[in-house]
Amino acid sequence: MTIGARIPRVEDARFLRGEGRYVADLAMPFMVEAYVLRSPYPHAIIRSIDASEALKLEGVEAVFTAADVPADLGPIVCRIPTHGDLSPYLQHPLAQDRVRYVGEPIAVIVAKSRAICEDAAELVEIDFDPLPAITSPYRAIEPNAEPIHEAGNLAGDWGFDLGNVEEALKSAAYTVQESFSVQRHTAMPMETRGLLASYDRGRNLLEVHGATKVVHTNRNMLAGMLGMSEQDIRLVEPDVGGSFGARGEFYPEDFLIPFAAKRLCKPVRWIEDRVEHFGAINHSRDSDFVVTVAADENGIITAFDVKLVTDMGGYIRTHGDVVPSHAAACFPGPYKVRNYRINTKTVMTNKTPTGTYRAPGMFEANFARERAIDRLADKMGLERAELRRRNLIPAEMMPWHVGTESVKRPTIFDSGDYPAVFEKALAGYGWDAPFEREENGWLRGRGLCAFVEPSGLGAFEGVRLEVDQRGNVTIFSGSSNQGQGHETVLAQIVSSIIDVPVEKIAVRHGDTGIITFGGGTYASRTAVLCGEALYNASHGIRDKALKTASAKFNIPVEELELREGAVWQAGKNEPLITLGGIARILMPGNPEFLKPPSDKNIPDHDGLVVTSYIRGVPGGTWAFAVHIADVLVDPRTGETKVEKYFVACDVGRQLNPLIVEGQLIGGVAQGLGGTFLEELTYSEDGQLTTGTFADYMMPNVYNMPPVSTLVLEDVKPEGNVLGVKGVGEIGPSGVAAAIGNAIADALKSNTGLNILPFTPERVLSAVPTVTR
Amino acid sequence: MTIGARIPRVEDARFLRGEGRYVADLAMPFMVEAYVLRSPYPHAIIRSIDASEALKLEGVEAVFTAADVPADLGPIVCRIPTHGDLSPYLQHPLAQDRVRYVGEPIAVIVAKSRAICEDAAELVEIDFDPLPAITSPYRAIEPNAEPIHEAGNLAGDWGFDLGNVEEALKSAAYTVQESFSVQRHTAMPMETRGLLASYDRGRNLLEVHGATKVVHTNRNMLAGMLGMSEQDIRLVEPDVGGSFGARGEFYPEDFLIPFAAKRLCKPVRWIEDRVEHFGAINHSRDSDFVVTVAADENGIITAFDVKLVTDMGGYIRTHGDVVPSHAAACFPGPYKVRNYRINTKTVMTNKTPTGTYRAPGMFEANFARERAIDRLADKMGLERAELRRRNLIPAEMMPWHVGTESVKRPTIFDSGDYPAVFEKALAGYGWDAPFEREENGWLRGRGLCAFVEPSGLGAFEGVRLEVDQRGNVTIFSGSSNQGQGHETVLAQIVSSIIDVPVEKIAVRHGDTGIITFGGGTYASRTAVLCGEALYNASHGIRDKALKTASAKFNIPVEELELREGAVWQAGKNEPLITLGGIARILMPGNPEFLKPPSDKNIPDHDGLVVTSYIRGVPGGTWAFAVHIADVLVDPRTGETKVEKYFVACDVGRQLNPLIVEGQLIGGVAQGLGGTFLEELTYSEDGQLTTGTFADYMMPNVYNMPPVSTLVLEDVKPEGNVLGVKGVGEIGPSGVAAAIGNAIADALKSNTGLNILPFTPERVLSAVPTVTR
Repeated sequence: MTIGARIPRVEDARFLRGEGRYVADLAMPFMVEAYVLRSPYPHAIIRSIDASEALKLEGVEAVFTAADVPADLGPIVCRIPTHGDLSPYLQHPLAQDRVRYVGEPIAVIVAKSRAICEDAAELVEIDFDPLPAITSPYRAIEPNAEPIHEAGNLAGDWGFDLGNVEEALKSAAYTVQESFSVQRHTAMPMETRGLLASYDRGRNLLEVHGATKVVHTNRNMLAGMLGMSEQDIRLVEPDVGGSFGARGEFYPEDFLIPFAAKRLCKPVRWIEDRVEHFGAINHSRDSDFVVTVAADENGIITAFDVKLVTDMGGYIRTHGDVVPSHAAACFPGPYKVRNYRINTKTVMTNKTPTGTYRAPGMFEANFARERAIDRLADKMGLERAELRRRNLIPAEMMPWHVGTESVKRPTIFDSGDYPAVFEKALAGYGWDAPFEREENGWLRGRGLCAFVEPSGLGAFEGVRLEVDQRGNVTIFSGSSNQGQGHETVLAQIVSSIIDVPVEKIAVRHGDTGIITFGGGTYASRTAVLCGEALYNASHGIRDKALKTASAKFNIPVEELELREGAVWQAGKNEPLITLGGIARILMPGNPEFLKPPSDKNIPDHDGLVVTSYIRGVPGGTWAFAVHIADVLVDPRTGETKVEKYFVACDVGRQLNPLIVEGQLIGGVAQGLGGTFLEELTYSEDGQLTTGTFADYMMPNVYNMPPVSTLVLEDVKPEGNVLGVKGVGEIGPSGVAAAIGNAIADALKSNTGLNILPFTPERVLSAVPTVTR
Repeated sequence: MTIGARIPRVEDARFLRGEGRYVADLAMPFMVEAYVLRSPYPHAIIRSIDASEALKLEGVEAVFTAADVPADLGPIVCRIPTHGDLSPYLQHPLAQDRVRYVGEPIAVIVAKSRAICEDAAELVEIDFDPLPAITSPYRAIEPNAEPIHEAGNLAGDWGFDLGNVEEALKSAAYTVQESFSVQRHTAMPMETRGLLASYDRGRNLLEVHGATKVVHTNRNMLAGMLGMSEQDIRLVEPDVGGSFGARGEFYPEDFLIPFAAKRLCKPVRWIEDRVEHFGAINHSRDSDFVVTVAADENGIITAFDVKLVTDMGGYIRTHGDVVPSHAAACFPGPYKVRNYRINTKTVMTNKTPTGTYRAPGMFEANFARERAIDRLADKMGLERAELRRRNLIPAEMMPWHVGTESVKRPTIFDSGDYPAVFEKALAGYGWDAPFEREENGWLRGRGLCAFVEPSGLGAFEGVRLEVDQRGNVTIFSGSSNQGQGHETVLAQIVSSIIDVPVEKIAVRHGDTGIITFGGGTYASRTAVLCGEALYNASHGIRDKALKTASAKFNIPVEELELREGAVWQAGKNEPLITLGGIARILMPGNPEFLKPPSDKNIPDHDGLVVTSYIRGVPGGTWAFAVHIADVLVDPRTGETKVEKYFVACDVGRQLNPLIVEGQLIGGVAQGLGGTFLEELTYSEDGQLTTGTFADYMMPNVYNMPPVSTLVLEDVKPEGNVLGVKGVGEIGPSGVAAAIGNAIADALKSNTGLNILPFTPERVLSAVPTVTR
């Protein structure tokens, strides 16, 4: 059984040898380069565009503006259900008569080189009529605010009202009300985005390299926009230097570059530069909460009452409002609170549009809820873990229906023994162990948080498993891989069932040319959904092999076993036939036995090949996690050092502990970035002021504390056959909450630490006057 | 019903616009060019090869010799069963210690350009020890002949002996014995062969463009030779400028170029030049017959007694001995002759190896048999058509088992009313109409021949049919297309059944990446086998669509119909749902009806997609054809003009009469080339003396007579659901026979005209002395 084995990642070999192929490594003969001319204004009317001078420049092939795309071309649609109709806020691939954020694509310039494109861009005359920029969602919804869209700036105003929050608040022994703010930040993958599109006009075939994450979904969107058949378009994911939820959505460029290639009948490549990336990639988070939490005198939380405002930026993109939707649906977290009310306002501003980023909505909600619970504990004088202990959903109440929904799917925590995991986490870290409160003038504090994390979302996933005539196995997966180690864990699943070594199992993914349908990678779904499809397909291969051998050798299936890549009769020393031999028998047209030759239809002679599509569990499967951290804070400067970090979680079953651990540790690093450093700030006039790595701080190796993990496999979810839960987002999801609580503990502060990131200034402002 | 419609070829649009993509049009970054260094000797020992000087040349990347390929790499195997074991005669991709024909690959030179390769080739020092060359099969099997292979020069000596030939000969009223010779010639496609191979070492993926005809078979062979998984190799057929049976087999280059790409980790392209083509492509025909035909006094043919010698060249290639095998299996043709004996000798010589060429073995056998029958008629004083009439297999004797077999499949003429077709052919042409025997000193003659032609051979074929969410249809075919019009006729079949216009149906083929298994194109098989698979797949789509609509609208299937790309309730004016709508419902994961959500396995929600593999009828399906020609011969010079040409055949059912007609007319042109012009001659010392188009004559537009066709659909074969027979080889198959008989008729000659091609000298030598 190689499931659960601590195998190093198979794909690392090529990365370490420098043999990875990223989109910028690709080139084609006659290839030209594209450049996206973007708005310098956050909000303006476009009176006219004159590209005539640009077109005269030697080497320029074309300048495409909104006037060049088909008049009936609609905007880029949401791929996910939304709260209410967000269609008035969708973005067209090229700005029509108005721009709404700095960086909005206005034109695509195609030339022999990127340098020529950039020179040409300076020759494009655009007559702008600037409008006032709105960068604050609160300003945006003031009555006199300039409407950014005709439909108004308040895109959504919705919520949930469960139980009787008013009554609970009235009868509460304790209430705490706090405001929290999670700053705008987003994914900064090592590799920026990029596309290489080529079009074979003779055969009407369009091939796009560089697409990632949800290639089949994007192909469908692109086919609709270009008026092509889906099967005439192939989207291929090369190697990818990070995705984290933001990369691989259908962006304006995902239409524009294929469109240009098709129009010009030349391969067109576009490689995003880092400055572009800052303004063009979906931003994320940017959510404010006002949280009221009520409890009775026994420390039982009786209500959450929440107001959430999320800044959506200038347009609604493919993710719709999933970030506030997840936050609103899951706010109560792992606690058995039946009185829950939230009002969510999604607001348009003149900033880059937003989308998901690893643990979307969860990082935000966890921070607000867990900080508020610490405040409640302080107010009650109750130990912080104890307060949580009293409120965790007990195992016997599983599955727990929150009563909310997100993306039209009910929020159901499907499985887990949260109290048991919580106790193991506390014991594992030594939560109760005493520690020095002060060291060389620095103050030490300890914080924790508890949360749930969804995984395995999405309607379906599919795989095709093929065994060739020599017994080699190939997995064709509908999923994608942006560094999660799929090439390893998917092979492990198959290896476990058909007993072929991982080295003989190739994993192909992220390519619409290899499988008709695919879901893709998001929401920590591949192990859960693709895993299940593979489990079924592997058993299909196994059954087919045993039945074939049974028929050939006239031995009952019950006496046969599949191991070491061959079928054996129980108790014999020599295999009967290899899997390759079975594959040869099952070749279409092979007249060998099974079917009489007169039977011209040969459904059983369709190879040692099995395709499996499985349907996801509507609510996905939810992991429970606890983060604990020790920090040292300098009360004189506000500087914070994370001394050690601990993640405990119950993931059902680990496919590969090395990869689980890597996901958790990497996720913590990313969470620390969002907690301390990363922030996309705008000036009042709508310019991004942290648009380079000089201004936008990323965590580095010096910021990384030692991270230890405790991965539990106590309760297997019943919703998938492997009993797994996704772990991709557990790492970042609780970091701001645990760190905020730890700093507050260090400072013994009951103010501040509600606004991210925790810059030295903000930490300093939370230092109680008496300490300072 | 678009089956049977006279639709212009869909694929022609791109060819006429210059948008075809041939392998020489393809290029890749960092691509290098390969050149095959070939033997200048027909027979020699290689003492040593020294490439050190060549490797010093600027721009040279590598020189690969036999020493560089894995020591355990075997030769290229036959893909078809053979008479006896021909494995001692197989060819290694690179000559080992001996060369056996001029043009045999000895080394592969890879460099920045072809020119550098050619310069480098001159620097490779090879120490040859020349051996005597044997260019005549008769010389080769003399006892004292130098053995070309250790196993001896007589590769095969086999035959059939049916009925009692000795007795029939003894009791015959008439016998005729004649010798016939069909010269060595072969396919000269406009486009020479070529390959572009690239290897992604990081992902272990090898992609080869330029492969054709049997891409899946070739992939399997390549995988074995490179020790790779089949699924790690993709073979892609670009557009192809002609194949005719010779192009697309697995040649030495089909290993060498991918091998070089994999070894160098660079894209490697090899484009065969015309001189190379002459010596490197499989040669064909090159068969001598001695035919004895016996008849009783009523003109009933009582026996064929045949000796066949086929010159195989220096090695046995992928086709094995299929050319003499077909000739031997089918020699009796459409005649009910039960006493049949043949001895076949397949002989190795120091010439280019041989393989199939359009109508392999049939062109040869038809020539020998039909000329002999004319001789018999002359001897008996019986009208030539009348003699044939008396001997044709009558309809009631169908299916006719000849009693022979070829490639391990029995020779069974499955269906047809030969006598009826024969009479229609005679009437259609006006066989009995009087004509002027002389005109300006030229003599006019009329000749005919009758023959059968196999089609639809091979074990299986497969297709996958997909309908996308917008109702576009794509056929993924396991077959290949080298100009036969598959993109049109395959779409017609689908269009007929699901009533979607041909313009909305794309056909993809010749690519191992699009379907797991495929048969490919040879033996006039695609209409028959791929057609049947598509018929089944189309009905599968139809059934799925109707069942889905029935479930959705709760209307019995019997009340539904599929037309105009939608499902309609009978008698209603509006469609219920489009095919695209059905496809959306059937998307994996769609929760809509059909299956309860608790059913996580969704076998029915696997798209509006159907894969169909069908098994071929073991003996294929056989067409019957009659060729008739009028010729004018100048008895003073031997010059011959073909005045008019007529082809009648019974093909079961025409998918597209325009394409059938094109196939027949094009085939006649090719047959005329083999009849009058094309010959690969060797000097006694083993050098090809017709190795350029200055020496090797091809027919051109001035040689083309008006060709009329009579395509009958009288009897549908029962072996395939569409009732079709292949027509690809009917055109050339009878030309030499009909022309030979016409010239003999013109000259009233009873000598000569037994040796092809009919050069003026040979025609002149057949002019009776009295006429001359």
